[in-house]
Amino acid sequence: MSVSAVAADRSVCAPLPVLGRDVLVPLVTGGEVDYAALDYAASAPALQRVWDDVAAYAPYYGSVHRGAGYLSQLSTDLFENSRRTIAEFLGCRTDDQVVLTRSTTDSLNLLAAVLPQNTSVFVFETEHHASLLPWEQRADLSVTYLNAPRTPEQAVATLERALADREPCSASGDPAKSGGAAQRSGPALVCVTGASNVTGELWPVRELAAAAHAHGARIVLDAAQLAPHHPVDLAELDVDWVAFSGHKLYAPFGAGVLAGRADWLQAADPYLAGGGASRTVSRRTDGGVDVEWHTTAARHEAGSPNVIGAYAIASACKALTEAGFDRLVAREQELIARVRAGLAEVPEVRVLSLFGDDAPRVGVLSFVVDGWNSSHFAAALSAEYGIGVRDGLFCAHPLVRTLLGTDPQDLGECGAPDGAPGERSLNAIRVSFGAGTPDEHVDRFLHAVKELVSDGARWNYRTENGRCVPAEA
Amino acid sequence: MSVSAVAADRSVCAPLPVLGRDVLVPLVTGGEVDYAALDYAASAPALQRVWDDVAAYAPYYGSVHRGAGYLSQLSTDLFENSRRTIAEFLGCRTDDQVVLTRSTTDSLNLLAAVLPQNTSVFVFETEHHASLLPWEQRADLSVTYLNAPRTPEQAVATLERALADREPCSASGDPAKSGGAAQRSGPALVCVTGASNVTGELWPVRELAAAAHAHGARIVLDAAQLAPHHPVDLAELDVDWVAFSGHKLYAPFGAGVLAGRADWLQAADPYLAGGGASRTVSRRTDGGVDVEWHTTAARHEAGSPNVIGAYAIASACKALTEAGFDRLVAREQELIARVRAGLAEVPEVRVLSLFGDDAPRVGVLSFVVDGWNSSHFAAALSAEYGIGVRDGLFCAHPLVRTLLGTDPQDLGECGAPDGAPGERSLNAIRVSFGAGTPDEHVDRFLHAVKELVSDGARWNYRTENGRCVPAEA
Repeated sequence: MSVSAVAADRSVCAPLPVLGRDVLVPLVTGGEVDYAALDYAASAPALQRVWDDVAAYAPYYGSVHRGAGYLSQLSTDLFENSRRTIAEFLGCRTDDQVVLTRSTTDSLNLLAAVLPQNTSVFVFETEHHASLLPWEQRADLSVTYLNAPRTPEQAVATLERALADREPCSASGDPAKSGGAAQRSGPALVCVTGASNVTGELWPVRELAAAAHAHGARIVLDAAQLAPHHPVDLAELDVDWVAFSGHKLYAPFGAGVLAGRADWLQAADPYLAGGGASRTVSRRTDGGVDVEWHTTAARHEAGSPNVIGAYAIASACKALTEAGFDRLVAREQELIARVRAGLAEVPEVRVLSLFGDDAPRVGVLSFVVDGWNSSHFAAALSAEYGIGVRDGLFCAHPLVRTLLGTDPQDLGECGAPDGAPGERSLNAIRVSFGAGTPDEHVDRFLHAVKELVSDGARWNYRTENGRCVPAEA
Repeated sequence: MSVSAVAADRSVCAPLPVLGRDVLVPLVTGGEVDYAALDYAASAPALQRVWDDVAAYAPYYGSVHRGAGYLSQLSTDLFENSRRTIAEFLGCRTDDQVVLTRSTTDSLNLLAAVLPQNTSVFVFETEHHASLLPWEQRADLSVTYLNAPRTPEQAVATLERALADREPCSASGDPAKSGGAAQRSGPALVCVTGASNVTGELWPVRELAAAAHAHGARIVLDAAQLAPHHPVDLAELDVDWVAFSGHKLYAPFGAGVLAGRADWLQAADPYLAGGGASRTVSRRTDGGVDVEWHTTAARHEAGSPNVIGAYAIASACKALTEAGFDRLVAREQELIARVRAGLAEVPEVRVLSLFGDDAPRVGVLSFVVDGWNSSHFAAALSAEYGIGVRDGLFCAHPLVRTLLGTDPQDLGECGAPDGAPGERSLNAIRVSFGAGTPDEHVDRFLHAVKELVSDGARWNYRTENGRCVPAEA
């Protein structure tokens, strides 16, 4: 699609320029091909705009919050302006705080650390491990794992039932305050993904938030897979917190975000203890140490902030907003339709889904191929076609096993292959794409799937250190 | 100094190329000047070599540990090779683990989290808050704050006395095992800085390590200020762990390191719960979730690794090693001598020191100026000379108050000015430099100090939002 065609049709935008589009990778069958990055759900390439912004800033890098020099003050402004840009991108309410973390995983571990004593946590077994596992790290939290729903409506009903079960009597929810049911049963938190990292399917976030609040619970949105593909608006979705990662949002510089309600964040001990989080520190006469902690986001950001990481995220937020989510979504939906239609032509391919064909989704899709070991298939896509996908259980073991109908003991390591090439699949293949993906990558992928299924791999593969790799020529 | 002169004299090297050397900043008195970054102790500029390596890699960025594609495997190799490079740089023993964290603060919070139950921690009050504060976050740890010693020998004696006090009987230490005194009194940890972030003075790490081990305690070295200036060798120093930050080691991409003994790291729960740290996750028949965690460094690295941050640190380690620490140290010692001699010519300047004039030190030096408010002085250095230093208490409040002889209640916020320009100093000015500092920056700084003291500031300053800034013209 030419630039002028895009200009003529404002409903679909061209792929945004990303780093690595012209990187050539070798094929085992000879020659080189430009790399088709179809593993956006793990890590997306940096937007060219993000890289350019980081490169332009790098010579001006200075200590944040800590120096009297010109570049220190410039860097401090850049860091705090990045925080504001991110807040705008997320539709934060005026009293929300934006904490810069290192990743979604870090953000959700931070939230787990600041929950009030004895909070009840409700989480679907279908979550990524980042949102499934942090809660049991604290012995005082009780965690309820909810079974995989098969429709969005069932998700809401399942949550409502679980929340109702914890209450001594029916609730009249007030979202922000700890009144009503919350006071009767103690604080509660619901953690839910916005878009599945396995199926790409959207979860009914607004409805789950309403259910949570109606029962006096709060809700955190894991937007790691949603934010790169869809606008996320805290106020509009009425969620209490949102977490996401820079490296999936075209800004892979080691930063992530937890944004939302300040009260629990500020009532808790600092996530990390150290400089930056502490306002004053002094020895007591008894030999101990007194600390007064900050009450801003800095309370949970001890240590020198990752200013480049934060700025990169802010740059990506601006780039996506300026490109226009409407147009980005329109283009991505075209790619999704094309991939699904192409895979539907291959009877051996089974696409994994919780909510069925009609569910709204982002550009993340997992599948298995009859007669193929998924690791073997993924290795052949890479070695013979220069296509990067992911195979495994995608750090969502219970969900993938539910979708595959396999037992827990069937598979070991996250992402490891499940046996020799040719054996049946105990894990899956995931293809994922986004704002930087050109049509050609999707077309090459579909061609490769069809060719592999009909003709088989052209090369031999073997398992080495738990990975499926091309055998020597 | 020309390149050929350096080649002729191998004992001193030229400044290493860093980003930002040609950045011009405006002067309040008119015109522009290239920025003199003299706040290395807070954050050092990126080495040009580090930036070039990151820029060369960025198009090849892919998901680490998670993808079947060529760039994912390349990125995984890069990440794990970076870990090995860092291990070599630190002189790690074969069974040590290198955990990639976000900063020194994060590294020491991680270590605090993995200490065995009821560990006794010993830390001098002179530490940076990052090494002073993490330990009391855990209620079961007992923390002994040791008073500021005035000689290195006194530091060792103070520690030995404190460790002996905790033992029911005298100890015959075995460093690595938890036998001897440790078994009688429970596990113990000593946390000590390698070089003070306030005075730049070196601490007697080897002697403190020997004392710790003789009393059945372990020791962690905070090398945030040491590693950028001196070789750090775990085996040679015989310390159990070392922590440092990329952003002080010319690699400001949001990563840090904790390296050392694996046993306590692997016996503890993961620092963060999530993907990457978990080997297998499965639902139990009772509805709960079983997790098997990794037993490598990945156990504490949940979430997608910051591959760019880790690679940047490895690149810096290589660049410093190739430049030769002998030559870097020789050059830095020349700069230190020049700064100290220059400041000694100004009777109004008082340099802060714990261990006295003869103590070995790195390029970090704090001082106050009679009759000057430190924030005012630092603001004038920036606005009138384009020099970036830091004023405040340097996230080491007890130490700076001890050195200044002020009371805890005298000063509030870390780094904030202590009143209107001209008032007496309740905080200090810190000048710090390193491998990228040219002679001219140090000369300009000394000239500026002398001129400010003799002639006063040429501009008016006022306090705004807690900072000292130039008043309107």
